Amino acid sequence: MHSSTQYVYQFSEGDASMRDLLGGKGAGVAEMTKLGMPVPEGFTITTEACRSYMKNPDGIDAQIRQPVLDALAQLEQRTGKTLGDPENPLLVSVRSGAQVSMPGMMDTILNLGLNREVVEALGEKSGNERWAWDSYRRFIQMYGNVVMGINENIFEHRIDERKAERGVESDVDLDADDMQWLADRFLEDYRQAKGENFPTEPTTQLFEAIKAVFRSWNNPRAVYFRQMNNIPDDWGTAVTVQRMVFGNLSEDSGTGVAFSRNPVNGEKGLFGEYLMNAQGEDVVSGVRTPEPIETLKTRNPALYETFDQIVHKLELHYRDMQDMEFTIEDGHLFMLQTRNGKRTPQAAFQIASDLVDEGVLTQEDAVCSIDPTYITAMLHPRFTDEALKTGTMLGTGLAASPGAAAGRAVFSSDDAEAWSTRGERVILIRRDTTPEDIVGMHHAEGIMTARGGMTSHAAVVARGIGKCCVSGVSALQFGDDGSCTIGDHQLNEGDWISLDGGSGSVYEGKLETEPASMTGAFGRVMSWADRFRRMEVRANADTPEDACRSRELGAEGIGLCRTEHMFFRPERIDAIRRMIVARDEDERQAALDVLLPMQREDFKSMYEAMEGEPMTVRLIDPPLHEFLPKTPEAVASLAETTGQSVEDINRATAELTEVNPMLGHRGCRLAVTYPSIARMQTRAVLEAAVEVKREHPDWTVAPEIMIPLVSETAEFEYVKSIVETTAKEVISSSGISLYCSVGTMIETPRAALTAGDIAARAEFFSFGTNDLTQMTFGLSRDDAGSFLQDYYDKGLLKEDPFSHLDRKGVGRLIKMAVDSGRRVHPNLRVGICGEHGGDPESIEFCEDVGLDYVSCSTYRVPVARLAAAQATLGRHAPERR
Amino acid sequence: MHSSTQYVYQFSEGDASMRDLLGGKGAGVAEMTKLGMPVPEGFTITTEACRSYMKNPDGIDAQIRQPVLDALAQLEQRTGKTLGDPENPLLVSVRSGAQVSMPGMMDTILNLGLNREVVEALGEKSGNERWAWDSYRRFIQMYGNVVMGINENIFEHRIDERKAERGVESDVDLDADDMQWLADRFLEDYRQAKGENFPTEPTTQLFEAIKAVFRSWNNPRAVYFRQMNNIPDDWGTAVTVQRMVFGNLSEDSGTGVAFSRNPVNGEKGLFGEYLMNAQGEDVVSGVRTPEPIETLKTRNPALYETFDQIVHKLELHYRDMQDMEFTIEDGHLFMLQTRNGKRTPQAAFQIASDLVDEGVLTQEDAVCSIDPTYITAMLHPRFTDEALKTGTMLGTGLAASPGAAAGRAVFSSDDAEAWSTRGERVILIRRDTTPEDIVGMHHAEGIMTARGGMTSHAAVVARGIGKCCVSGVSALQFGDDGSCTIGDHQLNEGDWISLDGGSGSVYEGKLETEPASMTGAFGRVMSWADRFRRMEVRANADTPEDACRSRELGAEGIGLCRTEHMFFRPERIDAIRRMIVARDEDERQAALDVLLPMQREDFKSMYEAMEGEPMTVRLIDPPLHEFLPKTPEAVASLAETTGQSVEDINRATAELTEVNPMLGHRGCRLAVTYPSIARMQTRAVLEAAVEVKREHPDWTVAPEIMIPLVSETAEFEYVKSIVETTAKEVISSSGISLYCSVGTMIETPRAALTAGDIAARAEFFSFGTNDLTQMTFGLSRDDAGSFLQDYYDKGLLKEDPFSHLDRKGVGRLIKMAVDSGRRVHPNLRVGICGEHGGDPESIEFCEDVGLDYVSCSTYRVPVARLAAAQATLGRHAPERR
Repeated sequence: MHSSTQYVYQFSEGDASMRDLLGGKGAGVAEMTKLGMPVPEGFTITTEACRSYMKNPDGIDAQIRQPVLDALAQLEQRTGKTLGDPENPLLVSVRSGAQVSMPGMMDTILNLGLNREVVEALGEKSGNERWAWDSYRRFIQMYGNVVMGINENIFEHRIDERKAERGVESDVDLDADDMQWLADRFLEDYRQAKGENFPTEPTTQLFEAIKAVFRSWNNPRAVYFRQMNNIPDDWGTAVTVQRMVFGNLSEDSGTGVAFSRNPVNGEKGLFGEYLMNAQGEDVVSGVRTPEPIETLKTRNPALYETFDQIVHKLELHYRDMQDMEFTIEDGHLFMLQTRNGKRTPQAAFQIASDLVDEGVLTQEDAVCSIDPTYITAMLHPRFTDEALKTGTMLGTGLAASPGAAAGRAVFSSDDAEAWSTRGERVILIRRDTTPEDIVGMHHAEGIMTARGGMTSHAAVVARGIGKCCVSGVSALQFGDDGSCTIGDHQLNEGDWISLDGGSGSVYEGKLETEPASMTGAFGRVMSWADRFRRMEVRANADTPEDACRSRELGAEGIGLCRTEHMFFRPERIDAIRRMIVARDEDERQAALDVLLPMQREDFKSMYEAMEGEPMTVRLIDPPLHEFLPKTPEAVASLAETTGQSVEDINRATAELTEVNPMLGHRGCRLAVTYPSIARMQTRAVLEAAVEVKREHPDWTVAPEIMIPLVSETAEFEYVKSIVETTAKEVISSSGISLYCSVGTMIETPRAALTAGDIAARAEFFSFGTNDLTQMTFGLSRDDAGSFLQDYYDKGLLKEDPFSHLDRKGVGRLIKMAVDSGRRVHPNLRVGICGEHGGDPESIEFCEDVGLDYVSCSTYRVPVARLAAAQATLGRHAPERR
Repeated sequence: MHSSTQYVYQFSEGDASMRDLLGGKGAGVAEMTKLGMPVPEGFTITTEACRSYMKNPDGIDAQIRQPVLDALAQLEQRTGKTLGDPENPLLVSVRSGAQVSMPGMMDTILNLGLNREVVEALGEKSGNERWAWDSYRRFIQMYGNVVMGINENIFEHRIDERKAERGVESDVDLDADDMQWLADRFLEDYRQAKGENFPTEPTTQLFEAIKAVFRSWNNPRAVYFRQMNNIPDDWGTAVTVQRMVFGNLSEDSGTGVAFSRNPVNGEKGLFGEYLMNAQGEDVVSGVRTPEPIETLKTRNPALYETFDQIVHKLELHYRDMQDMEFTIEDGHLFMLQTRNGKRTPQAAFQIASDLVDEGVLTQEDAVCSIDPTYITAMLHPRFTDEALKTGTMLGTGLAASPGAAAGRAVFSSDDAEAWSTRGERVILIRRDTTPEDIVGMHHAEGIMTARGGMTSHAAVVARGIGKCCVSGVSALQFGDDGSCTIGDHQLNEGDWISLDGGSGSVYEGKLETEPASMTGAFGRVMSWADRFRRMEVRANADTPEDACRSRELGAEGIGLCRTEHMFFRPERIDAIRRMIVARDEDERQAALDVLLPMQREDFKSMYEAMEGEPMTVRLIDPPLHEFLPKTPEAVASLAETTGQSVEDINRATAELTEVNPMLGHRGCRLAVTYPSIARMQTRAVLEAAVEVKREHPDWTVAPEIMIPLVSETAEFEYVKSIVETTAKEVISSSGISLYCSVGTMIETPRAALTAGDIAARAEFFSFGTNDLTQMTFGLSRDDAGSFLQDYYDKGLLKEDPFSHLDRKGVGRLIKMAVDSGRRVHPNLRVGICGEHGGDPESIEFCEDVGLDYVSCSTYRVPVARLAAAQATLGRHAPERR
């Protein structure tokens, strides 16, 4: 017994801050009540009562009976109506309401308090018998289904039966007699199903309804929703008991929903629709077409004026755009609910910007009012609404990289390049992609794959280069004849196809797109964000185009330039392959000598694109076998250019094959075995830097070279000395004054564990959290797709550790590394360049552990800018309730 | 200037404890001098002087000139001889001597102090002109080569020239004139080579010689030796200057080496050999055959008696068997060196045991006197000495698993089984082995592979099951006709071949073996070790045979039973495959139902073999694709038994293929996806335990089930609940009282980082340090072979982290996990079951962090017992100097 616990609160006792206890709905109506708004009276039974009920279902009556009866008595006094009193009956709704919105997931009972006696009196008094009997049959139906678990179809069949008898199509066409008939049948059905009479005692109805709503917290769809949204199972729901008001009581009644501003474009002014003589479900069902809210102004100017004032007051009060439900009962306005309204990304920026101008929000508030993940959708073209309405969908996959694109189908990287060179727009369609497809991906407007998840090669690269991508299209099948099918649809090379990377949909033919519209409000809010954030934001970019785009999107430099991506261009891959299969150091050096000027040009273009912004270049990282030819023709060609036999090439390939390439001969291990590669790359970077500095003496050109996959201080020192020696050679022979800094990726657990030692020698750390996550979990990103779903299904993993940084394991290593690194080297520059660098949740962690910068894929840069500002300000974007 | 530093010590000023400063040799002669033994007088220049010289070669003269001259003056006074005085010349040796023995790696100069005047006087006075000139020409030769860097061949050619002129074969046949002739030529050659005269001033000779010995610290063979033996490059060498005594001065002179006990079998009593009228190098060169030390007893009983007393005194003093060098000069005995003698493993146990009986050592001393790694060699058969002398070696590979075996060549696992079933002994010869070869490996006497290192599959499995293995035999080539060649030697199926897994040698034909001889001393010392150690020692064993053998070798239980090894037997692999390719849960369950009784019998045999000792059973760990058929025949057979098409089977195989299987769908992830496998295995263990307990009520049968590859508490809890529910079912329906404990492997970094959470639910931890090392370093053991050698060559890695636990990274994770685990669960049982569990260095770490037990491969059990005792006692086995 918790005699001291208050389980029931009148609306007048609560407020918006009591969300945990009263649920979103209960707190909302309490707050509106406090503000003096016209809210139907009521009280709320707390989430704590629900938790107590879940622990001990038999004890609840003793705990809440008296408080509920007391609250009911107060409610009766306040409304002047009495539950079950035919003369002046109080009818109530019994609604669920959790701390966070779980729309439609739990149950509600309306019109509670009705029995035959009350219904008859009500019909008589109101002069609306149909309404009275309709309300009664609805109540029986809901109570039977929700409280007693009677199959809904039983009642629905009755309605169909009656409509058939009466030869009508719609419920609206049933009259008062029909409703009474239905109520009688429902009562009979109830007795049949439960072996007892429908309860006529309103307090019995009330207590059973409250418990049923408690129970609905654990109905399967609610459980599933919580799992999907990381909501703890032990929160429980509050129950709000509220006087019923009826929008369908008369022609002077009505109901509607409204936003305080336009949720699509953010424009100021009421936006919404309503129906007279209707209930909420009528607005939704579409049987009658609702009217725009503006018409209410002429229909009832005084009421509209009142409503407009309430809306204004609510917006000022909540300091955000509101989404409201209201009901008009016999000309009286009642507010049923208000919450911060959902909106499009465009609207979010517009509203935030306007609210600052209106003095409602500070710039900090505005920056913190927007969910950073919204931004991505704004940066890409999208299909026009018209196109989406008329397009034929062929199938769906994962929304792997946003944007919309139409192009002609090609099935290989080479074809993508060939068609694109002819000036055609293409969509690259592959079973899955490998690094060899990168050239084709660059040439394509979009990429579609049959296999692979959100973190597959195709998805990661597409996001990185800002191409739209739909991955894992299971209906996609490849034929032997160079064509493919999606479901029944045959797709040949050259056929038009359209991808929506934001929704994962695939359309037949060529759909119209419209470009990204970045309104002035976007730029304005982002400039505030830039002022507030502590961390620097850089981009992961490997081409001059990416570099330019990332600067347009606000990157303050490149945090990760993956040099290997430059190797996949056709004119280079050949030299790289010759380097790999070289039989001695001379042959290797000869191939590297061919590559040197190419890499130098790469870096020069990058430096030019950056116009003096910094760039961190990572030495080659992937295992060399990734570069080797896979087709017999390519093998033969390599054999010819190198003067080796096909067998030699195949043997070299076989020797390089690895059991676990992720943990193999890659990263700085390549530089240890082949120092000449590291020398060539360093030389290319430094020579490029020297040339650019010579041509642009006013630019800051300070090369930063990053050594990947370090797990031991000695190997870092070894490769660092190669880099430094080479850099010194280039610099001293150039006569140009440059400083080249050398740092490392922290991406093996051991690097994190020994970061203190490494920091004594390194000038910067960059956390490679993709690999660090793989190694810390012992989980290959390429292989996890096959079983991680089982983990989500069984609730063993809440979220994808490759999308959101795992604070408990990976995060602990990062914190250890930052702390021990800074202890040894207080000015150590520390950043992150894994996929997590563009994830708001992970960016918050980066702020918490004191990183200096985050680096993320180009199109994530604005996301990171906003998220970093929110992290510095210590405020999340509010959830839209 | 370090005016306060003492750079030079008389022998009488030093002792054995000053090894760091005086080097092994300097400290040894100082200690003998202190003990009053007949040691030629001298002094030692410290390692500190060497370090100073290496830092500043030009400054050394100023630092050591005066101290050396002072020491020389003292030496002259003590000997009554004077350097360079023809009347009574002092001759000295100038020898290197590091802190640890680096035999033959650095330089020595003998007979220093000679010039023409001294030689002539010496020849006259001694009446032995040949000796005098021989000594002189040797000095010129050594000085010219070591100090001045003159090519040794110049001098050797002169000797050949003279022998040819004189028509003799051996140096011994050259007379005094020849020696004088040679000395003259050498002086001329010296002048030619260096453009200056050979220095006649003895102090000049002395200082130049000292510096040359300092320099020899950095000659290439010394550098290489240090690299191989993990000796720091900055220690430097001491230099000992000692009066020369001559074993070749007269017929009453001689020289020899002796051990205080037999180094082969450990028997007490002098053991050694000597030559009269000879120098040390004559004993080594083999021109004359040395005599056994016993004959000295009759030749010079008094001197023998003196020597015997000295030896006894040295043994008592050093409390260990001694290896000594001595010289007799004109009937006077001089001790030149003593050190703890190297010995065979058998001798080591015998000596330790005897020294306890003699009251020289305590039992603790005896236990700590033996290098645990010695033991392995004792536990396996070996080839007889006779066989090794007469055998023809075909090639060599890596000494991957010890023991010696002869058998008939087979080239497949199936053939191994077929021949062995016919009663033949076989050697399995493979390019490399896969899990499918395990049956064949069990049937073979030994395994030879063409590829793979010390940690290849073949090596690891062979060590685990105690089979001899030679891996990476590069001369081994496979033909298409089912035969192979080793170099030129053709080897057909059925041909006899012999492997020495201790040396890595491969012999033609059938060599005789002799069984392991475990003397009483072995058992005696091991029983002391068992008394002293704190940690329990268990074995990793997967078969009843291994279980029995491990108990014979002293294991106190099984710490790791890898259930998957049981699946590779032919009658089971089929059911396992059916389980894997099952199209639905029913088919899967049907296959599991077939496996259940087989696994139950496995575990029952194991429990019976253990006779009440504990056993930890690990649930299936490897990715399922390891079990699938690889050959078209096997695929066809599986298709037939399952009623699926060959394409279906191939598709299922392709779907299971992983990019990084190490980080893939394995360990507890299998149990999450297929709970029915975990249920079957748990049921098999528990049903076996129940049956065994019923049959042997007096035995302790307490099943321990271990969940592999956990990285998240929730997955551990999930699988644990499957295990517990199943166990409860079996136990409660049996009526037998049993307790089943459930624990986990800690083998992902994340498990170590979140060990506190896991410990709240787990009953034990077992560190799987193989995987933990792979993931912490980001280093695949299967792939590391191709590049780790570069790391050793470049000094970037000192030792193989898979052989010796990496304390800095992996060890830190282990310590964190133990500490946080124990904080939450003070009685948590914690052990290790990776390969490191059998490595003494790693066992010391396990003791340091407070593990409760180590578990290692069967044949490592005695190693672990001894190493654990030494770890508890806090003493290493002494290095043999």
